[in-house]
Amino acid sequence: MEYRNLGKSGLKVSEIALGGWVTFGHSVNDDQMVRDIVLKAYEHGVNFFDQADVYARGKSEELMGAVLRELPRHTLVISSKVYWPMSDDVNDRGLSRKHILESIDKSLQRLGTDYLDIYFAHRYDDNVPMEEIVMAFDHVVRSGKAMYWGTSEWPAARIAQAVEFAKANGLYGPVTEQPQYSMLYRDRVEKEILPYTEKAGVGLVVWSPLAMGMLTGKYDDGMPEGARLSDNENWAKQFVNETNRQKVRALKPIADDLGLTRAQLALAWALRQPGVSSVITGATKVQQIEDTAKAAGAKLTPEITARIDEILKGE
Amino acid sequence: MEYRNLGKSGLKVSEIALGGWVTFGHSVNDDQMVRDIVLKAYEHGVNFFDQADVYARGKSEELMGAVLRELPRHTLVISSKVYWPMSDDVNDRGLSRKHILESIDKSLQRLGTDYLDIYFAHRYDDNVPMEEIVMAFDHVVRSGKAMYWGTSEWPAARIAQAVEFAKANGLYGPVTEQPQYSMLYRDRVEKEILPYTEKAGVGLVVWSPLAMGMLTGKYDDGMPEGARLSDNENWAKQFVNETNRQKVRALKPIADDLGLTRAQLALAWALRQPGVSSVITGATKVQQIEDTAKAAGAKLTPEITARIDEILKGE
Amino acid sequence: MEYRNLGKSGLKVSEIALGGWVTFGHSVNDDQMVRDIVLKAYEHGVNFFDQADVYARGKSEELMGAVLRELPRHTLVISSKVYWPMSDDVNDRGLSRKHILESIDKSLQRLGTDYLDIYFAHRYDDNVPMEEIVMAFDHVVRSGKAMYWGTSEWPAARIAQAVEFAKANGLYGPVTEQPQYSMLYRDRVEKEILPYTEKAGVGLVVWSPLAMGMLTGKYDDGMPEGARLSDNENWAKQFVNETNRQKVRALKPIADDLGLTRAQLALAWALRQPGVSSVITGATKVQQIEDTAKAAGAKLTPEITARIDEILKGE
Amino acid sequence: MEYRNLGKSGLKVSEIALGGWVTFGHSVNDDQMVRDIVLKAYEHGVNFFDQADVYARGKSEELMGAVLRELPRHTLVISSKVYWPMSDDVNDRGLSRKHILESIDKSLQRLGTDYLDIYFAHRYDDNVPMEEIVMAFDHVVRSGKAMYWGTSEWPAARIAQAVEFAKANGLYGPVTEQPQYSMLYRDRVEKEILPYTEKAGVGLVVWSPLAMGMLTGKYDDGMPEGARLSDNENWAKQFVNETNRQKVRALKPIADDLGLTRAQLALAWALRQPGVSSVITGATKVQQIEDTAKAAGAKLTPEITARIDEILKGE
Repeated sequence: MEYRNLGKSGLKVSEIALGGWVTFGHSVNDDQMVRDIVLKAYEHGVNFFDQADVYARGKSEELMGAVLRELPRHTLVISSKVYWPMSDDVNDRGLSRKHILESIDKSLQRLGTDYLDIYFAHRYDDNVPMEEIVMAFDHVVRSGKAMYWGTSEWPAARIAQAVEFAKANGLYGPVTEQPQYSMLYRDRVEKEILPYTEKAGVGLVVWSPLAMGMLTGKYDDGMPEGARLSDNENWAKQFVNETNRQKVRALKPIADDLGLTRAQLALAWALRQPGVSSVITGATKVQQIEDTAKAAGAKLTPEITARIDEILKGE
Repeated sequence: MEYRNLGKSGLKVSEIALGGWVTFGHSVNDDQMVRDIVLKAYEHGVNFFDQADVYARGKSEELMGAVLRELPRHTLVISSKVYWPMSDDVNDRGLSRKHILESIDKSLQRLGTDYLDIYFAHRYDDNVPMEEIVMAFDHVVRSGKAMYWGTSEWPAARIAQAVEFAKANGLYGPVTEQPQYSMLYRDRVEKEILPYTEKAGVGLVVWSPLAMGMLTGKYDDGMPEGARLSDNENWAKQFVNETNRQKVRALKPIADDLGLTRAQLALAWALRQPGVSSVITGATKVQQIEDTAKAAGAKLTPEITARIDEILKGE
Repeated sequence: MEYRNLGKSGLKVSEIALGGWVTFGHSVNDDQMVRDIVLKAYEHGVNFFDQADVYARGKSEELMGAVLRELPRHTLVISSKVYWPMSDDVNDRGLSRKHILESIDKSLQRLGTDYLDIYFAHRYDDNVPMEEIVMAFDHVVRSGKAMYWGTSEWPAARIAQAVEFAKANGLYGPVTEQPQYSMLYRDRVEKEILPYTEKAGVGLVVWSPLAMGMLTGKYDDGMPEGARLSDNENWAKQFVNETNRQKVRALKPIADDLGLTRAQLALAWALRQPGVSSVITGATKVQQIEDTAKAAGAKLTPEITARIDEILKGE
Repeated sequence: MEYRNLGKSGLKVSEIALGGWVTFGHSVNDDQMVRDIVLKAYEHGVNFFDQADVYARGKSEELMGAVLRELPRHTLVISSKVYWPMSDDVNDRGLSRKHILESIDKSLQRLGTDYLDIYFAHRYDDNVPMEEIVMAFDHVVRSGKAMYWGTSEWPAARIAQAVEFAKANGLYGPVTEQPQYSMLYRDRVEKEILPYTEKAGVGLVVWSPLAMGMLTGKYDDGMPEGARLSDNENWAKQFVNETNRQKVRALKPIADDLGLTRAQLALAWALRQPGVSSVITGATKVQQIEDTAKAAGAKLTPEITARIDEILKGE
């Protein structure tokens, strides 16, 4: 495994992170299976485990936490997130100080740890003043409940505002942003986010780098028909169309040439950006995490990325 | 129930709040009756429960706290206040750092909670430097004992000074002011307070929106004579005169047209101000809180408010 | 003449100031008459001469400036103001940076001086951010075009905001406020303004301390009838009613006992407030300024002010 | 003409501005024709005149300045810009302190005025630290050479950074952004810029609101063939294609229903955004500016904008 600094921070994260989104508490509900996947990831050098309170409504934190608490705490980078509703209550959502401070205690309890390494604002909340948001996350860090904090799917302008407000007031500012980014969803990150974050030292931690599995090639022949779709597959539908299938099929020879699977190629492609610190993958089988872990360290030459660009822009 | 942001903060408060002033610990002294009223309010969507150390000298906090501690904490917005003497001791009053920090611990204990959502300075204290006051409330917030803080019956200039001093020094400033405001007591709020607070994002939480019951119509025929007056009625005396009785009677047809009681009309009238976040009502009977809860969400047209203005200004 | 510091600033202003409002450029349009009045005031120790661009649309500044420029500049405290429209142009009004910076140059030219001692914001402008207003007046001071700046008829909350914002940012803040204040118009100043300004060191410079002449007794028998009213008299009408006439007549024996005219009593009464630095009077005749200048230094005992309070509150 | 505040600043700008880009010094090179156009705009209430050093390499500033200097300065809002190379010199470009401070003096001289109302950074310059850029523009404002400053075509994150850095350091920050925005070029403004600028009080001044004339309908039948294209037409080519022609033709009935030309409709459409303060139009004939001036104040109902949205999204 290779490790990168999380942005300009001193924290080292594995290039490949294991996330609990749409897997743990969904199709992967068995304690033992979660244990096998987490430990296999750890064995391959994955140190970054990404959670959110809302993943399976707390169940994902609990399942993953049960395994992580047996590992040496200092070898782990554990993150969680706050924003999405956890109940119907009006204050049980968003980025008010009340909700942030109440939520981290609950995540810590579910995960069975005294502190997170990174606490993410899961979205931007236009309904709360920037000062309140930044001061609440600063409070989380000062109280020792998180080492760092970050943002997820925030507009670049809001990240900049948070960074500058924190700097101006001697507060802990965000050190990472977690956006969606993949070969099939690249524009927003490349045009709006990276041009700001890279220079500002805010490291990207990418979610859905495989476009919900589309980039693995598993939908080369379309979605499974007639069957009940898993959560993963429901998310994947947005990417499954003929245009994308052609692109993904065209990537195969490139991956083959490099001795990589298309999944590994897609992860290496996201990681070619120096502004990306880690890519988050999920796994429903032990084999998957073994395979993806191998993408760490794979370097793509300018010629390869040019060939890929050509394929991706093709209509 | 409808909810509003408390000023520009991210905290959502119910338009109708239940307060413990001059009811709990006074005429309502029975545990079960308090329980019935609080739970009925909660059932109707009231999430904001307003207290002060001085209400019945701590008894009101205790009675209400005994019920609130059985409800999920994150669904509640609990406030208390500090300023008025709790004993003859020279330091047991006012807004010195010593009194503020000592008092919140006592309020938390009486209420049986780890933190308040809002801690109010119950009056302005000209005897303490603004820096000391703001820094003490900032300390309360930083120590996690309150999520937010506010002021009550402060002159607008002092609120502005606190807001600006806090902003300039990276401290937590007040996000709410609690003034008296009703159809029969409107000038100070409309002329001095709202013109500053509304733009500054300091949300008003109004006390005595029913002018101590006068606006319900229950004194249409004057105060009860000969009888011993309740605490409520003693406060009400200031509003009971022939001029006001005529006004209140004149409001009846308007309320009737809207299918509201005069109490509901009076609450909706206070809530017509976007700068008002919530109105605090007391209740001595379960039925009262049920009735007032229904005022939430009632919208008054410009025509209606113009008719009311006409009645209120009438000599 | 007695002199006071302008609030906590180091500037000394005469207790009696001469203003150009509704006199110069109106009923007093003769160069020689202006000269006689200004020089007589100066001779009696008046050093504070108050102007505004809008007084007679610049004419008042020109008339007074023509006399003042012959006197030693350092012996004078010259003020002017900006806010009211000087033409129909959309930017020729209010407190935008553009209008403030453009207007002071014009006032300096009309007055024939290189700098003002005090530049007043003639009203608060809710249409311009406080930062823009304070930074523009700070710019005026930094550029040497005014020694100090102040406000006129601002709500206390806005004065506080300006003072605190300036302090927090190392900018020149307002050192004076110019409100209307007299025996017949006292509530706003005493209830809202002074409680803030006095402690904050913002000195009040009072306009209309004679309630547009009403307090001199000249309307004891009502307004002149049938005749065309002067500008002064048009303003005076708001104060001329039977209730006020009775009060003003009742003040005569008190003034007589003290060997003062009622005008002198009214000025001394305003100056009894330590938070008031100066009272501005106009004059249409030389004799007037001679008479009013003598009010400086007159002290009212607590007994006298109590008797006056009694008269003023009488319905 | 209607006027709006430039963002939250106190400066009032006409909804329709006259710009010198690709007209003055290009097809409009005649002193008299420029005079006629500028004076006609002024007569119709246009007070905002937009320039840049690079427009016709200074010629546009000179031509427009010759007319503007005859009008009362305080009735005008004059802007210019700096960034693009004015020669081959390595320092004669970009946003270095040197280039900014040297360039404004040249623009002032060409325009024949002592100060600009707004000085724009014509693009973001990634080669200069944000501190240097903001401090240089702050210097321009402090030296009295511009009343306000703004940005043009900056990423939202950079605007946010400039705003926050300025606020944190007591510097003058940007109050306006000048982006390209029209019915045929809307995404960047609506998705990235406005969501930040509107709440931050940074007012948009829109360039090319007519998509280089495409939206007037003049290319309904395609570009003129065989002829030598004007500068305007060369720019226009990017918008002239069959898809756009169909959209523009489909707008005609809507404009007709409202009694507007399509040009007027396009301007009113951009001005429907409260976050847009002004739209900049060019004119090569007196008649054009007369026509476009009439778009000011035209209000589009939600039904109309919905119909327009339908047309614009159509493939």
